[in-house]
Amino acid sequence: MFYVNHIEIKKFIFEILKIKNVELNCAENVANGLVHASLRGVDSHGIRLLPHYLDALASGRINPCPNFIFERITQSTGSLDADNAFGHAAGMKAVMIAMDLARDSGIGAVTVKRSTHFGAASFFALEISKKDMIGMSFTHSDSLIVPTAGKGRFLGNNPICFTAPCEGEYPICLDMATSVITFNKVLQLREENSLAPNGVGVNQMGFETNDPNQIFNLLPVGGYKGYGLSLIVEILCALLTGMPFGPHITRMYDSPINEKRNIGHFFMAMRINAFIELKLFKKRMKQLADELRAESPVNPDIAVQVAGDPEKIIAEKRKKKGIPLRDIDVIFFKKLSVDNNIPLRLL
Amino acid sequence: MFYVNHIEIKKFIFEILKIKNVELNCAENVANGLVHASLRGVDSHGIRLLPHYLDALASGRINPCPNFIFERITQSTGSLDADNAFGHAAGMKAVMIAMDLARDSGIGAVTVKRSTHFGAASFFALEISKKDMIGMSFTHSDSLIVPTAGKGRFLGNNPICFTAPCEGEYPICLDMATSVITFNKVLQLREENSLAPNGVGVNQMGFETNDPNQIFNLLPVGGYKGYGLSLIVEILCALLTGMPFGPHITRMYDSPINEKRNIGHFFMAMRINAFIELKLFKKRMKQLADELRAESPVNPDIAVQVAGDPEKIIAEKRKKKGIPLRDIDVIFFKKLSVDNNIPLRLL
Repeated sequence: MFYVNHIEIKKFIFEILKIKNVELNCAENVANGLVHASLRGVDSHGIRLLPHYLDALASGRINPCPNFIFERITQSTGSLDADNAFGHAAGMKAVMIAMDLARDSGIGAVTVKRSTHFGAASFFALEISKKDMIGMSFTHSDSLIVPTAGKGRFLGNNPICFTAPCEGEYPICLDMATSVITFNKVLQLREENSLAPNGVGVNQMGFETNDPNQIFNLLPVGGYKGYGLSLIVEILCALLTGMPFGPHITRMYDSPINEKRNIGHFFMAMRINAFIELKLFKKRMKQLADELRAESPVNPDIAVQVAGDPEKIIAEKRKKKGIPLRDIDVIFFKKLSVDNNIPLRLL
Repeated sequence: MFYVNHIEIKKFIFEILKIKNVELNCAENVANGLVHASLRGVDSHGIRLLPHYLDALASGRINPCPNFIFERITQSTGSLDADNAFGHAAGMKAVMIAMDLARDSGIGAVTVKRSTHFGAASFFALEISKKDMIGMSFTHSDSLIVPTAGKGRFLGNNPICFTAPCEGEYPICLDMATSVITFNKVLQLREENSLAPNGVGVNQMGFETNDPNQIFNLLPVGGYKGYGLSLIVEILCALLTGMPFGPHITRMYDSPINEKRNIGHFFMAMRINAFIELKLFKKRMKQLADELRAESPVNPDIAVQVAGDPEKIIAEKRKKKGIPLRDIDVIFFKKLSVDNNIPLRLL
């Protein structure tokens, strides 16, 4: 297994995007966002996406030098036209604006329209909580989950991310998709010839199956509850932005790569001290988290964790040991390095 | 089976509370809130709670004539001290303020502290969406669900409610608890001598069981995802308000009835036109809902529904036929009617 140092791969991705004429701030946010996800173990949204992004850039789906236009509509709200930018850059721009609005009026909420895939939702909400605010980030995505009682897919497994600052540690972070498992996990089960757990996916007729080769669409987490949560995210990201919803969204992989995606996002920043004293909040956040971690476990070897704990632990490990690369990633990055004459050290 | 007309039972509850010296606006909100839940089929949060509320009133847990004090902290936010009022009244007061803030700055978020049980979360968020805004309502509750990998209960099955206006129909409404099933359902299974489904509850040692008599605590919906969602609600309702969290909350039934509960709530109103044209939003909300309802069902007899559809259907039926009463409710209401000399017609 090969590894790559997180700082080196970030610089490498930035340099590659620069060569591809991506505007510097956009390039920086894409590099930061991809490495953020990989460091935290969210490999599905990490550096392995670079080949796809480069294709989308070359085909014209993603605009390398977008002209962001923000319209402030009220004291607390506004809408950012992303001009088909990288979602990472559009999202981070919206986050900065949302925090400015929150500094002014307590809360800032910014919709983003005409955007593209933004990677891991936590990249944005965590940036907000690092600034001592509650952060929220949402995006809709490819139609993939089956509505309760339905036969086929309709909404995406639209992620929900919520973060809060905590005394003495990195912010608390819930970042969850509204399906039970991701489709990447289904692909992995196919490769491994393993059976899928119960209740995760359905075949083309809408019936549950454990055979990953038969799983065509995903089930929402918790039945109608996950379906409802997915609908909420669709309302925030498609209806508040005017973007297409569910099955009308250009698919990330299956649609022609030159088609614009018109993805919508929704970000919110809430200043803690717009409600209560910041110091008290952070102290009690730490107390709540530590009381949960101190709960008696069912299995003495598996401690109770708080949202974001697994990612924090993996990030610490990967900062030291590097980010693991699959064989296919190694081949891709080596070729990219040679073709562009930018060195990359694999460990 | 006896039934009661929803308008008559609402008047009856209002008159009873008036006799008990409850301030008129509080009495009206409690009556409205209880009947709202019963009409929509959410019986666990409906009129069957009246005996408990009367006990909590008599014991001094609930203050019949609260002095609400609202502190506006920023343009978009503030905090309401509920003075131990009925949660229904405190919540509706906070909702009115949140909508005023939203009219001013686009978004209004109001925390409520020193409150009590507020009934069904949808009562509040729907009021916001009737005024063409996105509504959100949250409350924390008794410690009841087991954190993932934990042996005992910690957080409540804290509800999440999100509503949005829709052209030509009552607002879309997701109102969900963060446990798979409610504890009331467990009690019902015990009475019926039925087995509980898999994955809903654990015994005192933290192990899953299908025997409802052994179910001591509930599992979060979707494993760590439901646990994480419950934590979010706890952060909004306990940490942003300064109220106790999880196991430190006075229990609704098991704690001495004269103990104050110090419950926290969180409400948010977002004006649709703080983001996009209202008419367009509502039209597309209708389109999204109707496209979902037109999806092919797996079973031709079970249509795909949208969040809130089952409650809308039940409410229509119960408006005509009346709200069904269990035997125990009939006995209670008949006695209450006689004792207070207020007539109540059962159908």
